[in-house]
Amino acid sequence: MKIAIIGGVAAGTSAAAKARRADSNTEIVLFEKDKDISYAGCGLPYYISGVTSTRDKVVINTPEEFIKKYEVDVRVRHEVTEIIPGKKLLKYKDLDQEKTGEYRYDKLIITTGASPLIPSIPGIELDNILQLRTVGDADRIKNIIEDQNPDKVTIVGAGLIGLEMAESFKESGLEVTVIEKLPHVLPQFSADMAEIVEEHLKEKGVKLILGDGVKEFTGNKTVKKIYSEKGQKIETDLVLISIGIRPNVELAKKAGIKIGKTGAIAVNKKMETSQPDIYAAGDCAESIDLITEKPVWVPLGSTANKQGRVAGENATGGNYEHDGILKTGITKIFDLTVARTGLSEKEAKEEGFDVITTKIKVANHAGYYPDLEMLHLKGVFDKKTGRIIGAEVIGKTGADKRIDVLSTAIYSKLTARDLFQIDLAYAPPYSTPKDPIAVLGMVAEKKL
Amino acid sequence: MKIAIIGGVAAGTSAAAKARRADSNTEIVLFEKDKDISYAGCGLPYYISGVTSTRDKVVINTPEEFIKKYEVDVRVRHEVTEIIPGKKLLKYKDLDQEKTGEYRYDKLIITTGASPLIPSIPGIELDNILQLRTVGDADRIKNIIEDQNPDKVTIVGAGLIGLEMAESFKESGLEVTVIEKLPHVLPQFSADMAEIVEEHLKEKGVKLILGDGVKEFTGNKTVKKIYSEKGQKIETDLVLISIGIRPNVELAKKAGIKIGKTGAIAVNKKMETSQPDIYAAGDCAESIDLITEKPVWVPLGSTANKQGRVAGENATGGNYEHDGILKTGITKIFDLTVARTGLSEKEAKEEGFDVITTKIKVANHAGYYPDLEMLHLKGVFDKKTGRIIGAEVIGKTGADKRIDVLSTAIYSKLTARDLFQIDLAYAPPYSTPKDPIAVLGMVAEKKL
Repeated sequence: MKIAIIGGVAAGTSAAAKARRADSNTEIVLFEKDKDISYAGCGLPYYISGVTSTRDKVVINTPEEFIKKYEVDVRVRHEVTEIIPGKKLLKYKDLDQEKTGEYRYDKLIITTGASPLIPSIPGIELDNILQLRTVGDADRIKNIIEDQNPDKVTIVGAGLIGLEMAESFKESGLEVTVIEKLPHVLPQFSADMAEIVEEHLKEKGVKLILGDGVKEFTGNKTVKKIYSEKGQKIETDLVLISIGIRPNVELAKKAGIKIGKTGAIAVNKKMETSQPDIYAAGDCAESIDLITEKPVWVPLGSTANKQGRVAGENATGGNYEHDGILKTGITKIFDLTVARTGLSEKEAKEEGFDVITTKIKVANHAGYYPDLEMLHLKGVFDKKTGRIIGAEVIGKTGADKRIDVLSTAIYSKLTARDLFQIDLAYAPPYSTPKDPIAVLGMVAEKKL
Repeated sequence: MKIAIIGGVAAGTSAAAKARRADSNTEIVLFEKDKDISYAGCGLPYYISGVTSTRDKVVINTPEEFIKKYEVDVRVRHEVTEIIPGKKLLKYKDLDQEKTGEYRYDKLIITTGASPLIPSIPGIELDNILQLRTVGDADRIKNIIEDQNPDKVTIVGAGLIGLEMAESFKESGLEVTVIEKLPHVLPQFSADMAEIVEEHLKEKGVKLILGDGVKEFTGNKTVKKIYSEKGQKIETDLVLISIGIRPNVELAKKAGIKIGKTGAIAVNKKMETSQPDIYAAGDCAESIDLITEKPVWVPLGSTANKQGRVAGENATGGNYEHDGILKTGITKIFDLTVARTGLSEKEAKEEGFDVITTKIKVANHAGYYPDLEMLHLKGVFDKKTGRIIGAEVIGKTGADKRIDVLSTAIYSKLTARDLFQIDLAYAPPYSTPKDPIAVLGMVAEKKL
């Protein structure tokens, strides 16, 4: 048996590791066009700021380590240029040796990931306008900070990564401006919850420009100024473009593999694509939304990991499934934990749900115990069934716990009534006698 | 309408507050034989150590505040001596005025709580042998520490409260010995998990005597020495008896109200007792075990709060239920969070389940993010259905989150497979790409 894997970050290495554990004899070849594999994409902001001390900590395994650990033939700087499903063949280019080659597979796993969207704005080609996707990108940013000692950075786009990088750059001592075309930060969140984050960013000294886009970057070789669509001038030494990513599907598309409506590779729960013996997993592949049961594309490390594992197991003759996702996301923005799961109110309405929403502000633990902080919870409930179908949680402590309980509740199709009934753990350092989850349920039940 | 409530701590005040919110006209009289109401029993260890700065912080409402806030006729130092269900009458004694009286109710809520078990050991009557149940008890302990400046304290019993008090006394600068008759601390936990806690207690300088009981207390008026059953001599200036509690059911029993097999007052999901128009809630009442569907008695503040609320709502004509509990418990023991939910392996077997157990030791969050700590998770799974029916979690951070997710999973009848599927929130400060819950599920699935 021969298994080929294209791409060696979260999904690719998960698939390889699982395939090896499931079958100690099969030949596994992993092609990665970059020079690094197996790095923690989510850890890059912490590597840049130095919160994570060294590069080797975010690179979980070097190619050499991975080869040794999993007996996988890892070929870095090898770009796969064509898949020919009919012949079970792939063609690749060795980027260092500048030569080409072919590989015949029995099973193929596509984990080509995603790439940052780069807007075609005048001046975009100037130096010091960067993106953050790979560990190489992180190296570049870190080097500029260390070598050029820049004062000011501008982040274009206020999504999860943009805001994590706002904190990271602040940690590195830079003046930070974030410019976002939409009226609020974090488009996955409702406006009133996003405002809590905006307030916190301002308190931490981040300059926010909302509802405005970049018209032009200017500078002499290196970016120095940004002109916004609404006429603002922003001095800057460094720009991070963080307006989103798109799935890398060109290779799959050319091979006749079905691309879904979301633009990512269509897969079933077994991670099988439309072509026999070809799997796809991770940021290049779709998932099923567990509530709407429709395909969605929400690329995240945890999903990539699971999908990779399922693909690796099935490619070696297994029969495992990844049922889908709730688009659960979490991020630390300075002292705040900001998290969401399920459908937003807007999404729920678009899907035809008749909903009520409930928003509460409650203590994270017993009032007499030190370090009391307030938690903001928002729940979206289906009027017909009483089911919780979406939630947002923001707070300084205890927010990660509540989003995971709510995600489990949504997964389990629990109702507002159930939220009061669950026997959650109470002691003064951890919660209030009526847990915030129970309060959310009670308030929702009253409304329903 | 007239509602009488007997007992004014967690369940009683919850019932009163809910009844008032549900019905602004009804007369509500709350009888409490003590002088304090509405205090946080779970907060007393923190009040004693000074972690919670002042007494008024653990006393959530004084009688005066409660009267004002909820328009409830609070009668402290009033002991109810008899309930006559046929006449809907109760008799009470005013302890300060030394006179008696009667009150005719339409609905009665019994929240008489529980009392510490005091063993009949020779010398038990000596001074400085104390218990901890009420805020008055806490005052007494605090006064002894402040006035007598004792060096050594011995805690008899290594349950949740005993170990919380071990930490509390250490915070107050005392030498602490814990003596426990059973071979391990925390009888609700399995031996291998309890050992982790024992190791931690020793690291923190707590002396543990396991598998040994107290034979005699000696001293001249004040306790000075303890002789153990196995012949140990323990010098001590102070003793805390913490071997368990029993429900206060004498009043109910005398009134012909049914007492369950557990020894606590039998109630249905509406908190109705065997007598019409009489409810019971909190530490004096039973609950239903959500897994076995049998009555259980596991008195905890969070349950008391919910049951009180349900009783208060139903006494005012509402129709609410408390479905039951999973015996979820959590405690902070120095730097460790120690938590459980559902059935232990032993309980599951006694209930006729054919089970497998899974134990894992995993990182609480991404390896490259600061403050990495290990989490110990144990799961009990039903072989027939694959359902998770019990769990224990111990760790320095993130244990409270995992127990609440597992409690929600057990409540929702999720299987090992589901634990892998739930879309839990991942970012480096909060979890690992494969969350500990997912790993627990994967390992269990393999075993099943």
